[in-house]
Amino acid sequence: MADLREPPTEDNQADAARETATETSRSASTELLAPFDLDPHFVATVVGAAGDHDRPLLRRLLLPLHPADFAAVLAQVREETFKTVVRLLGPDFPPEALAELSDELREEALELLPSDVVGRALGDLDTDDATAIVADLDEDDLEEVLAAAPNDVRLAIETNLAFDEETAGRLVQREFVAAPEFWTVGQSIDHMRDVADDLPDLFYEVYVVDPSFRPIGVVAASDLLRGRRAVALREIMEAPRILIRPEMDQEEVAFAFQKYSLISAPVVDEAGRLTGMITVDDIVHVIQEENKEDILALAGVNDANMADTVFNTVASRAPWLFVNLLTALAASFLISRFSGVLEQLVALAVLMPIVASMGGNTGTQTVAVVVRAMASRELTASNAVRIVGREIGAGLINGGMFATILAIVAWVAYHNPLISLTIGLATILNLTAGALAGILIPLALKRAGADPAVSSTVFVTFVTDMVGFCAFLGLASIIILGS
Amino acid sequence: MADLREPPTEDNQADAARETATETSRSASTELLAPFDLDPHFVATVVGAAGDHDRPLLRRLLLPLHPADFAAVLAQVREETFKTVVRLLGPDFPPEALAELSDELREEALELLPSDVVGRALGDLDTDDATAIVADLDEDDLEEVLAAAPNDVRLAIETNLAFDEETAGRLVQREFVAAPEFWTVGQSIDHMRDVADDLPDLFYEVYVVDPSFRPIGVVAASDLLRGRRAVALREIMEAPRILIRPEMDQEEVAFAFQKYSLISAPVVDEAGRLTGMITVDDIVHVIQEENKEDILALAGVNDANMADTVFNTVASRAPWLFVNLLTALAASFLISRFSGVLEQLVALAVLMPIVASMGGNTGTQTVAVVVRAMASRELTASNAVRIVGREIGAGLINGGMFATILAIVAWVAYHNPLISLTIGLATILNLTAGALAGILIPLALKRAGADPAVSSTVFVTFVTDMVGFCAFLGLASIIILGS
Repeated sequence: MADLREPPTEDNQADAARETATETSRSASTELLAPFDLDPHFVATVVGAAGDHDRPLLRRLLLPLHPADFAAVLAQVREETFKTVVRLLGPDFPPEALAELSDELREEALELLPSDVVGRALGDLDTDDATAIVADLDEDDLEEVLAAAPNDVRLAIETNLAFDEETAGRLVQREFVAAPEFWTVGQSIDHMRDVADDLPDLFYEVYVVDPSFRPIGVVAASDLLRGRRAVALREIMEAPRILIRPEMDQEEVAFAFQKYSLISAPVVDEAGRLTGMITVDDIVHVIQEENKEDILALAGVNDANMADTVFNTVASRAPWLFVNLLTALAASFLISRFSGVLEQLVALAVLMPIVASMGGNTGTQTVAVVVRAMASRELTASNAVRIVGREIGAGLINGGMFATILAIVAWVAYHNPLISLTIGLATILNLTAGALAGILIPLALKRAGADPAVSSTVFVTFVTDMVGFCAFLGLASIIILGS
Repeated sequence: MADLREPPTEDNQADAARETATETSRSASTELLAPFDLDPHFVATVVGAAGDHDRPLLRRLLLPLHPADFAAVLAQVREETFKTVVRLLGPDFPPEALAELSDELREEALELLPSDVVGRALGDLDTDDATAIVADLDEDDLEEVLAAAPNDVRLAIETNLAFDEETAGRLVQREFVAAPEFWTVGQSIDHMRDVADDLPDLFYEVYVVDPSFRPIGVVAASDLLRGRRAVALREIMEAPRILIRPEMDQEEVAFAFQKYSLISAPVVDEAGRLTGMITVDDIVHVIQEENKEDILALAGVNDANMADTVFNTVASRAPWLFVNLLTALAASFLISRFSGVLEQLVALAVLMPIVASMGGNTGTQTVAVVVRAMASRELTASNAVRIVGREIGAGLINGGMFATILAIVAWVAYHNPLISLTIGLATILNLTAGALAGILIPLALKRAGADPAVSSTVFVTFVTDMVGFCAFLGLASIIILGS
């Protein structure tokens, strides 16, 4: 522990200052050491105040909150309450809270707030947050809002918006700190003091640039603090671990941040000149977004939000349910081809869902493992062949195990060795098919440039349904009925 | 943009320094602007060198790599190659790379490396990384390794290990910077220069403490850099947004970091005294781990790693496949109760999987949305009732839509209005049951203190299978056969 503190001294001001600090952090201190769940009573009070159109109470309740808490409270209430709160707060609506709201709620808030209020709010924010706020506005509203923003803010936002959604360009903060390599630690600190107000609110690194403004090094703020005044930046800088191009996929950038434990990273233009930075707080947000997308996509949901209405919810689920309907109908059509067999031996109808279900499960397991490993770059060209082999092996072994169990169960139920043989073989086949489809389908989707999380599950389940029913009923036709 | 750079000047040293920077970051610069996928040829060369037991080549290939790249390469190769590399590098194995390896690989590496090498390595790392490295060792190995570590390192690691896995205590870095509130910016910087070597490698904030060493404020490194020398820390500090207790669940801590965009946070003991800090790089890791756990748990996989062997893979999947077998057998038993109906009308056997499948899909969709919303605290006590209502509503509407489609399809296939009526009603019932189970089961599991991601899917599918088959075949008995 490197402790800058001297031995405890008498200091009358300490307690007073502590009081102040505690006072100003009222909303934070109630959460210290406690779970961060919102207090339902507090939310209920806000809902009540909105219902009464009690503007002073709403201001007293909401304005002292941290913007993240403010947004969290508004995410809990019904749409109507949300709208009332936005209307009643009007110009007092905190700009930082706009950045914390979900896309859907932010869109609603922007519609309700006067353009000049939003325009002024943009000026208070870093470029990355300001960009996120206006990203979903339509052409006309965007024009109106940007017209009300300060000129340089407008320009910076427009630059970011020129890049596609989910690219690094949208995350760029145009406020950063750069210095030439021959500057010393002392010179840099003196200069920072002189231009203190022009510096970004928070920064963790100073970028060292060459005469063409290309980043050639990174100096951590902590190294500036501990460095001797006479030391030149070039002596303490490290080479940038990554130079971000605004066209890069945000997932790509997030991966680099994670891999190299970055706190911030420089963004460069096509000439390699420093134009901005991306900070880890945005990356944490990207990671969560990408993970949310993956989890929902694997389950066949397009998008989901707790503020969604019933109709949003239906709309986000129906498309994949419809695809599932088509695959289920195909499986059903396949079964109908075996009506003759089923009529002769109703036991087959009883047992066939087991084979399909076990195969489907194996496939779903494999897809989840594979999609996850792709996202974290653990599954690569170097080990893909080995992993495919491993999955087939695991499918065969699990298939063998569960085939044995099912053959025994079938024997106990029907005392027919041919039924046992049929269900056993079909199970081995379908679990192996599930494992194979579970890895090959995501790999193929990725190679085709598609997101493997989005449709893998439905394709894999289709395969295991078809193989499951076809193998079981087909083998039954041959083995049991000899047809 | 706050640019500390002066107008471009002639500077002959610039190019030379840039050369050096580029040189030392050879491994990094090959990745600049490129995807971060590993070069399969490079991995193949490493595998070849290990096969030839070519120690000099391995050293030349691997030691210049960033620890994260080093670990990524080793995660790609077979177990045998991995062991050879560890044995051949021996004492040269980079300590930081140990921290970057997956748990499984790290365990293997620790078994192969001599205890004194590991012990010395621990001294080079921050407490949090050192703790992570030895966390999985058994009693005897741990004793041996810690005996070889410097005394203070040993103590710090033992303190962290006293806390449960997945708690904040395991993430604590005992190296931090603290100062009393009456110190000025100038005093603080001067002192940091004096004790430069004792400071943590990287820090982003200085914690301001009272005479009892309780944190009462946080000063960002950037605010120290821009602050006037005479300004007291108390004037520029902000109240700590959160004080972390080492017993806190790591998920809880990660949530606070995300919510408040924190870069680091102070850790305190039961008396409220500052004992360490947690930094955002560890939190990014926690977020990824928790997300990985959720994705795999939803698909019924216990754990998964690309380095797993076939047998690990079987072991991680078989338990949930077995549970699935039991639920499938239960569904099958249910179907067998309707053998009479199925014998009379084989169309029922053809259509019944559709109803079960659509219900299962609805349930899986809802579970994914709900588990995700719980993890991000969007689903809370305040909105749970509303969300349950919304899910039931969505289930009814989707049920109605797909019931209509299926009734029409059944009519086209069988020209029997009673079959259409049966499949329609069963579909509405089962999609509503899927939606209801999809939200109530995770809520119930959470209330019971269980992880809702772990077993929700299998329970929900069980419900939709049972309701699906029972509703369809039961309604068929009543409506079509009048039995």
